[in-house]
Amino acid sequence: MPETFGERLHERLRARGPLCAGVDPSARLLADWGRDDSADGVEYAALALLEAVRDVATAIKAQVAHFERFGAAGFAVLERLIVEARDADVLVVADAKRGDIGVSNAGYAEAWLSGRSPLAADALTAHPYHGVASLAPLVQAAREHARGVFVLSATSNEEGRALQRARTDEGERVEAMVLREVAALNGRADGQGAVGVVYAANRAAPEFDLATLGGPILVPGVGAQGATPADLARLFPRCPPDTVLVNVGRALAQKGPEIRALRDGARRWRDDLLAALP
Amino acid sequence: MPETFGERLHERLRARGPLCAGVDPSARLLADWGRDDSADGVEYAALALLEAVRDVATAIKAQVAHFERFGAAGFAVLERLIVEARDADVLVVADAKRGDIGVSNAGYAEAWLSGRSPLAADALTAHPYHGVASLAPLVQAAREHARGVFVLSATSNEEGRALQRARTDEGERVEAMVLREVAALNGRADGQGAVGVVYAANRAAPEFDLATLGGPILVPGVGAQGATPADLARLFPRCPPDTVLVNVGRALAQKGPEIRALRDGARRWRDDLLAALP
Repeated sequence: MPETFGERLHERLRARGPLCAGVDPSARLLADWGRDDSADGVEYAALALLEAVRDVATAIKAQVAHFERFGAAGFAVLERLIVEARDADVLVVADAKRGDIGVSNAGYAEAWLSGRSPLAADALTAHPYHGVASLAPLVQAAREHARGVFVLSATSNEEGRALQRARTDEGERVEAMVLREVAALNGRADGQGAVGVVYAANRAAPEFDLATLGGPILVPGVGAQGATPADLARLFPRCPPDTVLVNVGRALAQKGPEIRALRDGARRWRDDLLAALP
Repeated sequence: MPETFGERLHERLRARGPLCAGVDPSARLLADWGRDDSADGVEYAALALLEAVRDVATAIKAQVAHFERFGAAGFAVLERLIVEARDADVLVVADAKRGDIGVSNAGYAEAWLSGRSPLAADALTAHPYHGVASLAPLVQAAREHARGVFVLSATSNEEGRALQRARTDEGERVEAMVLREVAALNGRADGQGAVGVVYAANRAAPEFDLATLGGPILVPGVGAQGATPADLARLFPRCPPDTVLVNVGRALAQKGPEIRALRDGARRWRDDLLAALP
């Protein structure tokens, strides 16, 4: 019986492969799919994507910004998506990128990582700007409930690099400090701990050995953002098997809205990613 | 007629003083106030705080984490608080600390800074981890709708310092890079632009002249987190008058739940802050 999120994720990755399907019901996607830009449109797109990938993807990554566009009504749609994904046996990463001082992170932990909230997901993405140590309430809730946290290290966009590659007074790059501190939280070598990181596939290798992270890696940047499966082989060659979860968002959704085309696209992505990873 | 958020804020600060009342309906506050830890309890505490400070505070800062604890039901409470604050002529800073790549920030801009969402607030706090430039959709929406963005520079908690004081390859500290980039976005000297920063009162002065920021400064850290009005005089002596908004959260809320005691506490804080600022 798996006890950590990383162990749960590892089982799924081994069984289903590394595909995480991005659920990004933006105004633009809804227009492309010929749907109203409304909470109903968001619900249609989110559930259609889930239905298409349910037998192919290990997880979906819900971009919370696009649900939040409609306030409480959008969050009600996200709650429904989480229930439907659980029924479909697909993990949910809430890509909310939350982060604050500890007392406020306790609120985010209750929202996303406790059993009692309707937003309880399998994992949450988090900002390290207040320090990885400030995320302790998220880490604690994740451990208690076999849920996970993915802390941002290296993001896919160009504008973030100056900050993420800045050096602390100890001489360590910010993105590497995050990796080292996450590794210390996990304290294990198998990549199956509760605390993962976000490391984009279009970035250079970090000044830290990702193989020693102890937790899973959520990888954006593949597809519309320019990285390819070959980049995975370049960045993660020595990571423990079945610990890397690769998000494909726009490059997959643009196959829609027809479910069969989405499903075929998801299968091809899964196979391509599988061939590239250890 | 004020055209930017900074101009709107400046008018209020001049008329009412620098107090921003923190609305932080955490599990702990609700227990202290003898209320259920539920969406109803959150609503009671949030509206009581608003009622107490409506004639004393320029703004309230709603800590979104504590509303988010209850999912869609919590966001419905936040929507009501925003409506009630508008009716009470009190500005609302949504302390949501959002931040992502540009296409996702466009979603957050729709949620918090467009006219059409029920979460539309007067200003939103934002993370710079993806780079200040990635916040462009938030900045654009803020400018279009006379709303504001407060970008995190120096936070009140100890754990964030290694990252925030790291130096970029250009030799600039991260917290100072944020200030410089925000100043460039504002391009004015009066502190009344659309883009502000968060700079905590318990931090050292930055390696950047805050008087040249061009936008307002939201200041946490006063009260329960240890900083005093004297710290304001130390950090912001040369800032343009009426451009500094000082949040007081727990130190104020602990006077409650009795409305009159809260109101008296808010008056004392306002007077003490007013005496300390330029």
